[in-house]
Amino acid sequence: MKWILSTIDSQLNTYNQVEMLSPAAERLRYILNEEDDMPTPTLFTEMDTLQREGGELEWKESARWVKFEEKVEEGGERWSKPHVSTLSLHSLFELRTCLQTGTVLLDLEGYSLPQIIDDIIERQIEEGMISPELREKISFVLLRKHRHQTKKPIHRSLADIGKSSSSSSECHAQSRSMNDIADTPSTDQLKNKFMKKIPRDAEASNVLVGEVDFLTKPFVAFVRLAQATTLGGLTEVPVPTRFLFILLGPQGKAKSYNEIGRAIATLMVDDLFSDVAYKARDREDLIAGIDEFLDEVIVLPPGEWDPKIRIEPPKKVPSADKRKSVFSLNELGQVNGTAGGGGGQAEDEEMPPQHELGEELAFTGRFCGGLYLDIKRKLPWLPSDIYEGFHIQSISAVLFIYLGCITNAITFGGLLGDATDNYQGVMESFLGTALAGSVFCLFSGQPLIILSSTGPILIFEKLLFEFSKNNGIDYMELRLWIGMHSCLQCFILVATDASYIIKYMTRFTEEGFSSLISFIFISDAIKKMVGSFKYYPINTDFKPDYVTTYKCECLAPDLSEFTPWLGEMQGAYPQGGGVATSLDWSQLSKKECLKYGGSLVGKTCKFVPDLALMSFILFFGTYSMTVTLKKFKFSRYFPTKLRKLISDFSIFMSIMTFVGLDMLLGLKTPKLIVPTEFKPTRPGRGWLVMPFGKNPWWIYVASSVPALGIIACFHLLYIALCLIESIYQQNKGCGYHLDLFWVGVLMAVCSFMGLPWYVAATVISIAHIDSLKMESESSAPGEQPQFLGVREQRMTGILVFALTGVSIFLAPVLKYIPMPVLYGVFLYMGVASLSGIQFWDRIKLYMMPSKHQPDFAYLRHVPLRKVHLFTLVQIACLAVLWTLKSTFLAIIFPIMILGLMVVRKMLDLVFSQHDLAWVDDLLPGKEKKKKKDDTKKKGKDKDKKKAKPDDSEEEDKCHAYSNHSPSTDSDLDRRYCVLKLHIPYKDLVCSDVEQSQWGAYCEAADTHSAL
Amino acid sequence: MKWILSTIDSQLNTYNQVEMLSPAAERLRYILNEEDDMPTPTLFTEMDTLQREGGELEWKESARWVKFEEKVEEGGERWSKPHVSTLSLHSLFELRTCLQTGTVLLDLEGYSLPQIIDDIIERQIEEGMISPELREKISFVLLRKHRHQTKKPIHRSLADIGKSSSSSSECHAQSRSMNDIADTPSTDQLKNKFMKKIPRDAEASNVLVGEVDFLTKPFVAFVRLAQATTLGGLTEVPVPTRFLFILLGPQGKAKSYNEIGRAIATLMVDDLFSDVAYKARDREDLIAGIDEFLDEVIVLPPGEWDPKIRIEPPKKVPSADKRKSVFSLNELGQVNGTAGGGGGQAEDEEMPPQHELGEELAFTGRFCGGLYLDIKRKLPWLPSDIYEGFHIQSISAVLFIYLGCITNAITFGGLLGDATDNYQGVMESFLGTALAGSVFCLFSGQPLIILSSTGPILIFEKLLFEFSKNNGIDYMELRLWIGMHSCLQCFILVATDASYIIKYMTRFTEEGFSSLISFIFISDAIKKMVGSFKYYPINTDFKPDYVTTYKCECLAPDLSEFTPWLGEMQGAYPQGGGVATSLDWSQLSKKECLKYGGSLVGKTCKFVPDLALMSFILFFGTYSMTVTLKKFKFSRYFPTKLRKLISDFSIFMSIMTFVGLDMLLGLKTPKLIVPTEFKPTRPGRGWLVMPFGKNPWWIYVASSVPALGIIACFHLLYIALCLIESIYQQNKGCGYHLDLFWVGVLMAVCSFMGLPWYVAATVISIAHIDSLKMESESSAPGEQPQFLGVREQRMTGILVFALTGVSIFLAPVLKYIPMPVLYGVFLYMGVASLSGIQFWDRIKLYMMPSKHQPDFAYLRHVPLRKVHLFTLVQIACLAVLWTLKSTFLAIIFPIMILGLMVVRKMLDLVFSQHDLAWVDDLLPGKEKKKKKDDTKKKGKDKDKKKAKPDDSEEEDKCHAYSNHSPSTDSDLDRRYCVLKLHIPYKDLVCSDVEQSQWGAYCEAADTHSAL
Repeated sequence: MKWILSTIDSQLNTYNQVEMLSPAAERLRYILNEEDDMPTPTLFTEMDTLQREGGELEWKESARWVKFEEKVEEGGERWSKPHVSTLSLHSLFELRTCLQTGTVLLDLEGYSLPQIIDDIIERQIEEGMISPELREKISFVLLRKHRHQTKKPIHRSLADIGKSSSSSSECHAQSRSMNDIADTPSTDQLKNKFMKKIPRDAEASNVLVGEVDFLTKPFVAFVRLAQATTLGGLTEVPVPTRFLFILLGPQGKAKSYNEIGRAIATLMVDDLFSDVAYKARDREDLIAGIDEFLDEVIVLPPGEWDPKIRIEPPKKVPSADKRKSVFSLNELGQVNGTAGGGGGQAEDEEMPPQHELGEELAFTGRFCGGLYLDIKRKLPWLPSDIYEGFHIQSISAVLFIYLGCITNAITFGGLLGDATDNYQGVMESFLGTALAGSVFCLFSGQPLIILSSTGPILIFEKLLFEFSKNNGIDYMELRLWIGMHSCLQCFILVATDASYIIKYMTRFTEEGFSSLISFIFISDAIKKMVGSFKYYPINTDFKPDYVTTYKCECLAPDLSEFTPWLGEMQGAYPQGGGVATSLDWSQLSKKECLKYGGSLVGKTCKFVPDLALMSFILFFGTYSMTVTLKKFKFSRYFPTKLRKLISDFSIFMSIMTFVGLDMLLGLKTPKLIVPTEFKPTRPGRGWLVMPFGKNPWWIYVASSVPALGIIACFHLLYIALCLIESIYQQNKGCGYHLDLFWVGVLMAVCSFMGLPWYVAATVISIAHIDSLKMESESSAPGEQPQFLGVREQRMTGILVFALTGVSIFLAPVLKYIPMPVLYGVFLYMGVASLSGIQFWDRIKLYMMPSKHQPDFAYLRHVPLRKVHLFTLVQIACLAVLWTLKSTFLAIIFPIMILGLMVVRKMLDLVFSQHDLAWVDDLLPGKEKKKKKDDTKKKGKDKDKKKAKPDDSEEEDKCHAYSNHSPSTDSDLDRRYCVLKLHIPYKDLVCSDVEQSQWGAYCEAADTHSAL
Repeated sequence: MKWILSTIDSQLNTYNQVEMLSPAAERLRYILNEEDDMPTPTLFTEMDTLQREGGELEWKESARWVKFEEKVEEGGERWSKPHVSTLSLHSLFELRTCLQTGTVLLDLEGYSLPQIIDDIIERQIEEGMISPELREKISFVLLRKHRHQTKKPIHRSLADIGKSSSSSSECHAQSRSMNDIADTPSTDQLKNKFMKKIPRDAEASNVLVGEVDFLTKPFVAFVRLAQATTLGGLTEVPVPTRFLFILLGPQGKAKSYNEIGRAIATLMVDDLFSDVAYKARDREDLIAGIDEFLDEVIVLPPGEWDPKIRIEPPKKVPSADKRKSVFSLNELGQVNGTAGGGGGQAEDEEMPPQHELGEELAFTGRFCGGLYLDIKRKLPWLPSDIYEGFHIQSISAVLFIYLGCITNAITFGGLLGDATDNYQGVMESFLGTALAGSVFCLFSGQPLIILSSTGPILIFEKLLFEFSKNNGIDYMELRLWIGMHSCLQCFILVATDASYIIKYMTRFTEEGFSSLISFIFISDAIKKMVGSFKYYPINTDFKPDYVTTYKCECLAPDLSEFTPWLGEMQGAYPQGGGVATSLDWSQLSKKECLKYGGSLVGKTCKFVPDLALMSFILFFGTYSMTVTLKKFKFSRYFPTKLRKLISDFSIFMSIMTFVGLDMLLGLKTPKLIVPTEFKPTRPGRGWLVMPFGKNPWWIYVASSVPALGIIACFHLLYIALCLIESIYQQNKGCGYHLDLFWVGVLMAVCSFMGLPWYVAATVISIAHIDSLKMESESSAPGEQPQFLGVREQRMTGILVFALTGVSIFLAPVLKYIPMPVLYGVFLYMGVASLSGIQFWDRIKLYMMPSKHQPDFAYLRHVPLRKVHLFTLVQIACLAVLWTLKSTFLAIIFPIMILGLMVVRKMLDLVFSQHDLAWVDDLLPGKEKKKKKDDTKKKGKDKDKKKAKPDDSEEEDKCHAYSNHSPSTDSDLDRRYCVLKLHIPYKDLVCSDVEQSQWGAYCEAADTHSAL
C-alpha cells in the first residue's frame, strides 16, 4: 500500500490539532452550506456490467441501490435480499484515483445517450487520454443494449420451461431494452413494480463497468447532467438519469472493475456524498467527498469477519442530517475520532436521560384548569374529527377493532358472569361496552382510545363479589356506591388538576401490580380447569368389558321415610296421591331422584365420562392455538399482511376453532350463559340498581376506599396510553382531564345500570391507533417505512361501538361457546401479559448463564447481583400481595399500589440512584435534585446538540414524546421510552415506535391491556 | 483527510500493474517466509486505560481480545459479549502515525515493568522526543496499579451489597493488583477462570492508553520483549507479556486515544499482523503490516451501518493460512482487488464442485477385493479399539446411547408388535438389538455405527405382514426367505465390490424415499389415533343428569335359540347342565355375554367413556412435549450441557412423563404388550423359524425380489453414515465391505430366529460418534471450539448392547407404557424427519413470498420456477409411490427406489445439468463428461489454490471428506457436503461439521435415522 506511505506525516499535524478542519471538510462545508435550502433528490443507482451473451456484447444489470445493495443472483435469476454494501478499502482508493485521472463532466447538457457518450469521448480525445481511432470502438461498446433483471410473474415463467428445457440456463427471464436510443420509457420500464420502492422525485445514477480488448488503460468518466434526462432503456425503471459513471478497462481485471463500480454506486446512494455530487463545482469537490466518506467508514478487521457474509440492513442508521451538521455547525472539536467507536464509547452516559411528563399533566393552579385547557385544545378539531373519518382505511380499522371488541366483550363477559354469579354477564358486557365506548368516543379528548373491560377490573369485581357474599352484603348496591365514589373522586382529580401524583408510580409499582393480575389470571384459569375434573369426575376404574355391570339406579327411599315429602310429591305429580310406589323411579333423572329423596346406587353415579377430558382439550387447545397463531406473525410464510391478520385475530380464530370442535363432538361441556332475549343475564335483577335499602349505612361511606383503587387502576392504564398516542398523533393534542371526566361520568352510569366498569384498554387502543396510522408508501428495500401520523377522528370508534351494540342480538350464537375455551383465552392472557413485563425478564435472568443473557441496557449499567436483588424484592412484594389477596383485604386490592409505592420509596435506601434509574425510574423528588446537579452540564449539551434549542419548548408539551422519535439517537430514545411508559409492554411498543414499524410489537403487547 | 491527498497518484501505477507486489507486501513476504517453520504463539491482548478513581490514578482494564473484542461494561461490572471489533479508518491511520513517530523497541531485554519503562523513557529522551524532566512523571503514571475486571461469584458479591448500599456505584467488584512490581502471578491472576479460554502457549500484549495533564504531545511506545515475561499484575491472567503498547497524550482526546488503543489491540490479535509483529526487524516492517491489514479490511459505508451495533462473531472467518499464503506463493495476480467483494464476486462458481466417493467404494476388480482391503486396514487397530475405550468420556457415552437404544427398542418393538400382530414385539426387539448390535460392534469395520430398528424396515415389515395375511402366506417363513436372500445378495455385493452402484442414488431418489417413509409414519400415527376414537366411541349424547337412565344390560337370549350353544355352556359352567336360565346374565361381562349369545341392551353398550380422549391427550401430549424439549437446546436457559441433555433425552423424558400421567389417572388405555417372562411376544411361536413347509415353493424364489429392496434400504442408510464418520475419524479408516458382510450374516441369523432386521441407524450412530468426539478445550470467546477427532473403539458399543440385552428383564416396567404415547413418538419421528429434508424445504417455498425465502444456495443459482418444477415432479412421484403402496406392489416397496432412479434419469431431459447439480446431484456418467470439460480449468485452479496439490490423493481416499472440513472455503464445503451426504439431515450435519460444532445439529437429524 505505497499509496499512503508518504505524506502521512502531515497527518501528525491533524493529530495534534484536531480542532482544525481538514481541507476536505473545509471544502465540503463550503459547498454544502452554499444553498442548503434546496434538498437534493434521492438517487437510484443501477450498475450494469458488460457481458458477452451469445457472441454479442450487452450491458447486463448486476446490482442496484436505493439505499442498500441488491445484487442480481445470476443463476437464480432473482434479486438478492437488500444488504449493506461491504466494500474493500482498496476499491475505494482505486475509485479515488479514477476520479482524479478520468474525465469529470459536471452539468453536461445531455439529451440522449449517444450525444452524451460522444461528448465524453470528445473530451478524452481533447485531453489526449485516448487516441482518436478508439472513438468508434468505445462508442460502439457503450451503446450496446441494456438487459435488466426484472421480476416476472411465476406462472408465466413456468410456461417458459418447456421451451428452454434441456438446454442450459439460456432462458431469458430478463427484459431486454431494445430502444436504448429512444427517450421515452419502454413498457418494460413502466411495468416495473420496483418503481414503488423509489421516491417519486428520485433521479438515477448509472454505473457502467466492463473490460474490453482494445484498451490498454482504463477509460473513466464521471458525468453529471445539467438536467435529469430519461436515456432510453439505460435504467430498469423510468427514472431520469442525472449521473453517469463509466469505467472501461483492459481485460483481466473484471473483478477489480466490478468492485470500483460497487464503490461508486455505494457512494452515490450515501446521503452525504450524493449531496456533494449534486453540488460539486469541480473534480476536487468530488475527491473531498470521497475523503470525507473514507473518514467516516466503519472498518471490520479481515481476521474477524468474512467479507462473503451479507450483512442485513440495520434497523436504524445514523441520520444524514447528523452527519451533515458537522459541516454546517461549529462543532469542530468532535469532527475526528468519533466516527467508529464500535462497541466503544457511545454508551458512556452513565444515567439514562430524565424527562418530565407532558404539560397537560402539570398543575395549573386554577379550578378545572386542566379541563378547561383540554376543551379549548380539542374543540377546534371537532369538524376534522368527523370528516377525517371518511377514508378507506377506516373501514378495515372498524372491522378489526369491532372483532377485537366483541371478542373482549364475550371473554370478559363470560368470565365476569362466572365470577359474579351472573350478576354481570355477556349481555351486560355487550351493552356496557357499546354505551361507554360510544359516549367516550363522542366526547372524549382522545377518541382513538377504546374503553373496554380490563383484567384489573375483572379481578376487582371477582374479589368484591366474594367479599359481599362472605359478609352478607348486597353486591350490586355496594358496587353502585363504589362507582359513585369513583366518579366523585374523578371529578375532584379533574377539578384540582391533581393527576401529577402519577409520577410517583414507577416501573416497580406497576410491575408488581401487573404481575399480580397476571398470576391471578393464570392461577384462576388453572383452578377452573382442575375444578372441571372435580365437577366431572372420571371413573378411573372403568373397564370397557364390564360395561354391563356399571349402572346407576335411582332406588325408592325406605317407606318409613316416606311421609315428609309426600306433600311435595303430590304437587309434582298431581295426578296421583300418596302413591310413591307408583312412581317409576328408574325413569327419574339424577336431580329428580335426589329431589324426591331417592338414593342413587351404582358404580357410575358419581362419575361423568368424557367431559373433564374434553374440557381440558378445549382449554389447552385454545391456549396453545392462540399462542401459536400469535407467533405466526414472525414466520416466513405468506405475505406480511396475511400473517399480521392471522396474528391479530388469533384469539378470535382459536375461539372459533374450538367452538367448532366442541360442536362437532357434541358433548355437553359447560357453555356460556347468555339470555336469548334482551334482559339482564341473571334472572331477577333489573336494569337499574337502587342505591339504598339493602346494606347498612356505613357501607355507603366505606366504599370510598375501594373506589380509590379503581381510580388508581384507571390511572395506570390510562397514562401510558396517553403517552403512546402522543407519539402518534402529531397535531391534535391530548385531553387527559376531559377523558378523566367522562370516565367518571360513565362509571356512575354503569354502576346505576349494573353494567361493568370500563377503563381504557391499552392494547385494543393501540391496535386502533395502529390501524389508522399513515406510512410513507415508498421506502428503499431493506429500509423501514417512514411513519407519517395517525388519522385521529371519532367516526371509527363510534361505528365500532354501534356495531357492538347491535351485536347483543348475537346471543343465540354465543351460547355455543364452551366455558373451557374462555378459560383457555384467560390463561393465554395471563401468560402473554407476564412475558411482556421487565420484571419477568429479570426473573428469567436467574435461570440464564450470564453469557446467554440478552443484552438489556440495564445489564450494561447495573451489576447483575443488584439486578437480582431488585428482582428479589419484587418477588417478596408479590408474595405479600398474593397473601393479602386471600384475606378480607382483597376488597381494597387496587390500593395495594399505594403499598408498593411505599416499598419503592424505601428502596432508595438500599440502591443507588444510578442503579434505580436503570432498573426502575427515579422518584420526582430525587429527580429534581439530580436535575439541579446536571443543569450546567445539560446547558452545555444543549448548545452543542440543538440547532434551534427552545422553540419546541414553547409548543404544547403534550407532544414531548413525539419530538424524540424521528431523528435523535435511537438508544437514548429507547431508554427514555422504556423508563417513562411504565406499563409492561412499553419496551416493545417504544422500540417499535422509533422504528416506525408498529407491526412488530409482539404478542405481549396484544394482550396486556386485555387484562 | 489530507493524509492521503498527495502521492495517491503513485497508486495509479499499482492500478495498472497489479501483478507487481506493493512494497509493503514485498517486505512482509520477506519476513514471513524467513523462518516459516516456527509458528508464533497466540496473543492475548488487554487494554487498560488510565482513570482517576477516588483521587488516585490507576490503570483500569477496559477491553480484552483473544480473537474477538470483549469490553468491560462499566456500570454492569461485567464483560460484554465477544464481538467483532469495528474500528474507524481514522484511528487506524492515527495508529500508523503513532508507530511512525513513536518509540519502537524490538527485542528489548525486559525483566520487570519499571525497568522496561525506564528503557522506553530513556530512549525517548535520547531521541529528544521528551524533555528529561518528564521522566519522573511519566514513570509514575505508568507504574500505577492495574485494576482488572474479573468475574466474581454471584453469591459472594450479593453479600457485598449491604456494605455498599445507598452509596453510588462504589462497590469494587474488580480485583486490584497491588503487586504490580512482583514478577510472580498474583492469586487473583491464578484464580481467573478466563485462563481456560486462552491457549496454553499464549503470550500477552498489553495496551496502555491514557491522557495526562503534563504532556503537550503524545508519548508513544511499541515494545517487543526478547523473552515473554510475567510483569506482575499487568495482565489479568498469568500469561507472560511479549508486547507492550503505550500511548499517553495531552488531555481532551481520551476517545481518540481509546480508539487508537482498540486499533492496535485488534491488530495484535490479527493472525497476519501478530506474525509480522513477532518477526518484524524494524519499524518499517510494522508499518508494512498495518498497510497490509488496511488493504484487507472490510469497509461498511457510514450511511448504511450504525457503528454502535455490536456485530456478533461470524461462524467462520477466512483462515489466516489463506491470507498468509499470498506472501509465500506466486499468486500475485490476485493480491489486490479480492479482499472486499461483499455480496459480490465470491460465489461466482456456477457449478457446485463435484467430488467422488471415497476409494473404499471403488471397484477393485478382484474377488472380495474390498473385503480384503477392509480387513487389512482394520486389523492393526484392534488393540487400540480396546484400550482406547477406557476413558471417562466412554461412561457418559454408554449411558446416553444405552438410553437411546432402549427407547428405540421399545418404540419400534411396540409398533412392530402392533404391525405384525405380535409376531415380533418388544421382547424380540430387545433381544435382536442386543444380539445384532454386539456382534456388529465386535467384528465390524466401523464399530461406532449402531445397528438398530429403523423406519423403512418397520414399514416394510408392516406391508409384508399385511401382504402375507391377505394372501394366506405364512409371514415368518416368507420373512426368513427374504432374509436369506438379502444375506446372499450382501455376500454377492461384498464379493464383487459392486457397491459403487450407490452413486446412482441422488438426492432425488433418497428424498422421495425418505418423504414416503415420513408420510407413512405421520399417516399411520394419525390413523391409529382416529382408530382409537372408533375403538372407544364417545357417547356424545351423554347428559350427566340422566346418568340413571344409562345402562347396558346383558339379556338372556330367546330360549328357542338356546340349544346350539348348550354344550359349550356346559363346558364353561361344568357345575350345572342345561340351565341357561340359571346363569346370572346380569353378572356377565360384555365379552362373556356375547360369547354365550346374550344380547346387549342399553344406551351405553357401544360407548367407552374417556379412553378415546385420554388416548388423544397422551398421543398429542407426547408429541408436543418431545417437540418442545427438542427445541429447548436453542433456548437461553440453563448451561449448554444441561440443555443438550434435555434435548437429547427429549423422547425418553416425554415417554416417562406421559406414562406417569397415565398411571396417575389410572385409565385403562391400551398398553404395550410384553411377555413377563423370556419368551416370544406372540404365544405359539418359538425362537426358531423353519424354512420349509408352510408356503408354496415359488415363494422361496420370489422372495429374492423384496430382498433387493432391503439391500437398497441398507445402502441408503449406511453410505451416509460411512461418510459422516469419515469426517470424524481421522485415522482408522472405513470398512464398508466388512460391515456389509456382517450385516448380511446378521440378517440371516435374525430371520432364522424371527427377530427384527437391523441396519445402521443414522442418528443414534451420529449421537454415538458425537458423544465420543474430542474438542480443543480452549477457544477464544466467540470462536467455535476446534474439533480434534473421535475416540473410535469397540468398548462403548459392546457395553451398550450388553446392557440392552440385560434390559429384557425390564418387561414388568414396560407394560405400563400406553400405546398412544408410542404413537405420539411415531408422529414426532415422521414430522421431525420431514423437516430435515430439502424437498420439504422446497415445498415450503411455495408458501413463502420470495422476499421472505431463506438464502438457500440453490436459490441463488437456479431460477425459482425451475426449483418449483423440480419439487412438483417429486410431489408427483410421491403421489404415485403412495398409491402403489396401497396395492399388492407394496411388498416390493423398497424397490421403488429403482423407479425413482429411472424418473431421475429422465429429468436430465427436462432440466439443464447446471440446475440439477444445484437442486439434486449429477449422475456419474454426466459427472465424468463434465469433468472432462473442466479439466483444463480445474488444472489452473489447482495450481492456484493448492499448495501441495497431489500428495493427499496418494493417501487413503476414504478420508476424502475429512480433507475438506478444516481450512477450505466454507460455502464450497457446505455445498459439497449437502450434495454428497444424501440423507436428509445432511445439511445440518455438514454445516456443523465444518464449524466443528456438532452439538448444533438439530432435531431433524436426531430422528431421521430412527426412521
